[in-house]
Amino acid sequence: MPELRKDPVVGRWVIISTERGRRPSDFKSESVVPRGGPCVFCPNNEDKTPPEILAGRAPDSPRDGPGWTYRVVANKFPALRIEGELEPSGEGLYDRMNGVGAHEVVIETPDHMGSLATLPVEAIADVLLAFRERVIDLKKDPRFDYILVFKNHGEAAGASLEHPHSQLIATPIIPINMVEELSGSAQYWQMKERCVWCDIIRQERRSQTRMIEETQGFVAVAPWAPRFPFETWILPTFHRSAFEESGVDEIRGLAQILSDFLRRMNRVLKDPPYNFMLHTAPLHDGALEHFHWHLEVIPKLTKVAGFEWGSGFFINPMPPEDAAGALRQG
Amino acid sequence: MPELRKDPVVGRWVIISTERGRRPSDFKSESVVPRGGPCVFCPNNEDKTPPEILAGRAPDSPRDGPGWTYRVVANKFPALRIEGELEPSGEGLYDRMNGVGAHEVVIETPDHMGSLATLPVEAIADVLLAFRERVIDLKKDPRFDYILVFKNHGEAAGASLEHPHSQLIATPIIPINMVEELSGSAQYWQMKERCVWCDIIRQERRSQTRMIEETQGFVAVAPWAPRFPFETWILPTFHRSAFEESGVDEIRGLAQILSDFLRRMNRVLKDPPYNFMLHTAPLHDGALEHFHWHLEVIPKLTKVAGFEWGSGFFINPMPPEDAAGALRQG
Repeated sequence: MPELRKDPVVGRWVIISTERGRRPSDFKSESVVPRGGPCVFCPNNEDKTPPEILAGRAPDSPRDGPGWTYRVVANKFPALRIEGELEPSGEGLYDRMNGVGAHEVVIETPDHMGSLATLPVEAIADVLLAFRERVIDLKKDPRFDYILVFKNHGEAAGASLEHPHSQLIATPIIPINMVEELSGSAQYWQMKERCVWCDIIRQERRSQTRMIEETQGFVAVAPWAPRFPFETWILPTFHRSAFEESGVDEIRGLAQILSDFLRRMNRVLKDPPYNFMLHTAPLHDGALEHFHWHLEVIPKLTKVAGFEWGSGFFINPMPPEDAAGALRQG
Repeated sequence: MPELRKDPVVGRWVIISTERGRRPSDFKSESVVPRGGPCVFCPNNEDKTPPEILAGRAPDSPRDGPGWTYRVVANKFPALRIEGELEPSGEGLYDRMNGVGAHEVVIETPDHMGSLATLPVEAIADVLLAFRERVIDLKKDPRFDYILVFKNHGEAAGASLEHPHSQLIATPIIPINMVEELSGSAQYWQMKERCVWCDIIRQERRSQTRMIEETQGFVAVAPWAPRFPFETWILPTFHRSAFEESGVDEIRGLAQILSDFLRRMNRVLKDPPYNFMLHTAPLHDGALEHFHWHLEVIPKLTKVAGFEWGSGFFINPMPPEDAAGALRQG
């Protein structure tokens, strides 16, 4: 019998097919195998990107030259533009705003054929610290209300360049999914005076059925009501609403569990395309008792169809308990 | 300069790249070309599907035999099951319900190589009338709160069988997208005592910039804040909240504009994969002043990536004014 499950934060229901334990091999996706460089993100092509905003560099290596381990540059084809003041305006009953924002690319390694999953943990920590540094810097700009940090890995997950990279987009409004998470978790807080994600961590630790990995300071769990097969949430066990307020040790802890998880996922699902998205508090909300930052990882194994687009109601053929089991053993 | 636009119903913002008029040919998608039958939905294979619930039949043709123009059958691999009472239960802080519902398939034509777009308008009307009849019948079941009618056309849009068909899923809860449309439109009503979709129709008729087609009783418009290139809404000009309360003439009017639109879309975008989803009021809400049923059509031309999944914030490289222009001329 299939089962309907409700996400405890946003209240979205999903259909979970629990009748048969699916195996990871039932989900066919094309493995992500880079075709090879060099590309605009490769060393010696530094002049083909906008000038670097931040980089990990060998001493004495020249800015916008080779010798880096990671580089942050403005996106050459930005979704939003950094110039100008915010100008909200109307058109009859409609609302618009000019597209002010920031769109940056974090080139994660000089190695075109590398991947975040195969980098040393220290190099992953450097990339995550670069996210933190860019968020702290962009936060000073009063025009921005939110920063979304995300990664598209593989063409099927929306990556247009195969050289390992992730992205930051700073927006002048709070995206609707965040508004919903904030409102759902505020409601939970009002009822219980506890953070819903802290409660989730407690329950998952106790039951272990959806636990994938626990480390000092972090858990990787399959959520109760996942939209997608093998969807995974990585959460810090210490309550904190804003990612950028994490200390260096916490960021290193995140690098460790992210590295472990990506390697696990790649073994079990054979290098699938995937996305990750950092869920963090809005920039100017201060510390929130009810919001808890976390990272959501979704391997791209299924196609989203009319039912999902029409209803926001997802059909997931992989029970999270089975997904967690496969990933734990993987 | 890109532009941020807010959907007037649900409040979702999208980024519209308005800097350059894109042409339809900038969006490459594989044309949907059926490989050929026969398949389980073809005539003479009626015993390979569950028994028919409804069909358009020549007089004297036997049930579950050939001689039909459309057939409605239960889905052999249903997302939800028809048997059993609703049993909500909890697991710690989580909520679940057993997966009770109905999942039916409407086989739109006996012709494996056909398509909804190329059927005669009368045959499309028969399919839409079959939707209406099934909704009216399933509505009698007190376990169901909502029925989603949708179509996946082409593998990239999630169709697993190429024989032309659409689907109905009856659910014991109201899907989250509907909850949001209902709440957004109720807020609008509270403020203005007008239906937001009636206002949209009025404004689009006046400005004409996003109008694709107007017929007696219907409009096809590119919405102000579309998530996807060439996203199109078909709305009845007469205010009505529930699709199933439409009269036969209205359903015929819908068949006419849907046929026109699909043919237009196929000319302009070269038979793209697409989804459509009927947005209609919950089954037991009675007539609502603030909700207006409509059909949303989305050609599948772009990939949804981490930014969209993480934020609910869509980047659409095709301004709806340009999309409407191309479809008007197409």
